[in-house]
Amino acid sequence: MCDACGCVSPEKKMVDVNQSLLAANDAMAEKNRKHIEALGAVAINMISSPGSGKTTLLEKTIEVLGGELSIGVIEGDIETERDAERIRSKGVPVVQLTTGGACHLDATLTHKGLHALQDQLDDKKLDLLFIENVGNLVCPATFDLGEHHRMVMISVPEGPDKPAKYPRAFISSQLFVISKTDLLPYFDFVVEDATKDALQLNPKLDVMSLSATSGEGFDSWISWLRSLSAEKK
Amino acid sequence: MCDACGCVSPEKKMVDVNQSLLAANDAMAEKNRKHIEALGAVAINMISSPGSGKTTLLEKTIEVLGGELSIGVIEGDIETERDAERIRSKGVPVVQLTTGGACHLDATLTHKGLHALQDQLDDKKLDLLFIENVGNLVCPATFDLGEHHRMVMISVPEGPDKPAKYPRAFISSQLFVISKTDLLPYFDFVVEDATKDALQLNPKLDVMSLSATSGEGFDSWISWLRSLSAEKK
Repeated sequence: MCDACGCVSPEKKMVDVNQSLLAANDAMAEKNRKHIEALGAVAINMISSPGSGKTTLLEKTIEVLGGELSIGVIEGDIETERDAERIRSKGVPVVQLTTGGACHLDATLTHKGLHALQDQLDDKKLDLLFIENVGNLVCPATFDLGEHHRMVMISVPEGPDKPAKYPRAFISSQLFVISKTDLLPYFDFVVEDATKDALQLNPKLDVMSLSATSGEGFDSWISWLRSLSAEKK
Repeated sequence: MCDACGCVSPEKKMVDVNQSLLAANDAMAEKNRKHIEALGAVAINMISSPGSGKTTLLEKTIEVLGGELSIGVIEGDIETERDAERIRSKGVPVVQLTTGGACHLDATLTHKGLHALQDQLDDKKLDLLFIENVGNLVCPATFDLGEHHRMVMISVPEGPDKPAKYPRAFISSQLFVISKTDLLPYFDFVVEDATKDALQLNPKLDVMSLSATSGEGFDSWISWLRSLSAEKK
C-alpha cells in the first residue's frame, strides 16, 4: 500500500476469516429462525445508531399492543442491563444480552438469548419477538440473527445523509423508520431526501416516519406489526 | 454454549486473529505519529455516533481558527465524499478515506491518508490535524491511528446513558464533548449525569459541552485546541 514504509494491510486477512465466520453465523441464524417459529413468533431485528430511540419505540409499542399480542424482547448492548430494565417494567418477557465489547449481536449470542427467553415463557407462545441490536448502524447489518424482518431506524437529529453513508443497513432491511419527527421544526432534515436516498439503495423498502413522543405516524407502525402477526397465522 | 444444538462460538477464533491484527495496527500507528510530527502537527482522532455533529464542529472550528492555525483534515466514511466536500469548501487541505464497508479507520488506511494529505501540502506545515473517524461509538475506540489526542463526542439527542453503554470510547479518550446543547430544552438530558458516568469510567477526562449552532461553550473547545498547538511548540 505504501512504498515508503512497505506496510501491508491487515484487512485482507480479516476478510478471509470473516467469510468463514459469517458462514457459521448464517447456519446458526437458520436454526434460530426455526427456534423462533417454534415459539410461535415473527422476529424483528432493530438496527440503528445509539440514541435513535429503539427502546422508547419498544416501550410505546408494548403499551399499545401488549394487551392484544404476546410480545417478547431480546436486548443487545455492549454493557449494562438498563434497556432490559426499562422493558421489564412494561411487564413483558425480556432477556438482556451483553456483548462485552462486540459491536453487534451475532446468531450464536442470539441463540443463547432465545433459550433464556424460552425459560421465562413456560410454554406460552409469542406473537412478536423484537431483537434490539447494539446501537450501531454499521456492523449489525452484516449479521443475520434469524429474524424474519429487519428494520433500520434513523432519528431526525442524526441528519438525512445516513442512508447514503451507511448503505448496507438499508440494503438489507425491509422497513426504514424515521424517528423523532416531533423535532423536525428544529432541524434541517428533509424527510423526502432521506426517503429518496434509501429507496435508491433498496426500492423494496417500506418507509415510515413517526414520533413515539407525540404519537404522530405511530398508527402506521402498529398496522405494520399487526400485519406481520396476521400473515404468520 | 448451547447443549441442545452443540453450537460453538465463532467469537473465540475472532479474538485470536484480532490480537495479531491489533499488534500490526499499533505498530503502524507509531509510524503515523512520527509522520504527523514531521508534518508539524498535533493530531486529534474524533469518535462519535453518526450525526453527532463532528463535521459541523469542524466547519465552525475552521471558521474560527483557520486564520490563526494551519489545519488539515482526514475524513473517514464508509461511503461518499460528502464530508470532505463540506470541509474542502472551507479552504483547508482534506483527504477523504472511504473504508468500503469497514466500521472504523485503522492505522494502515490513515497512513494512506497522511501521504495523500502530504501531496496537497507542498512542504507547508500543519498545526492541527483532525481525523474524523467513521460514525460509530464502538469499534473506532479499539484502533490507535497515530493520533496524539482522542476525543469522544455525544450529542444531546442521543441521551445521557452513552458513557455507561459504550465505555471503551470514554476510557481511551482524553476529551469528552457533549454537543448540540442548544437542544437541551427539548430533551430529558442531564449534562451532569452524562459527565458523572464518563468521569467514573475515566477520571482524567476533560469534559466540555457546547453548541456549534448557538456558539455556547465553543470558547472552551477553541482554548483546548490552542493549548494543544502551543504545547507542541
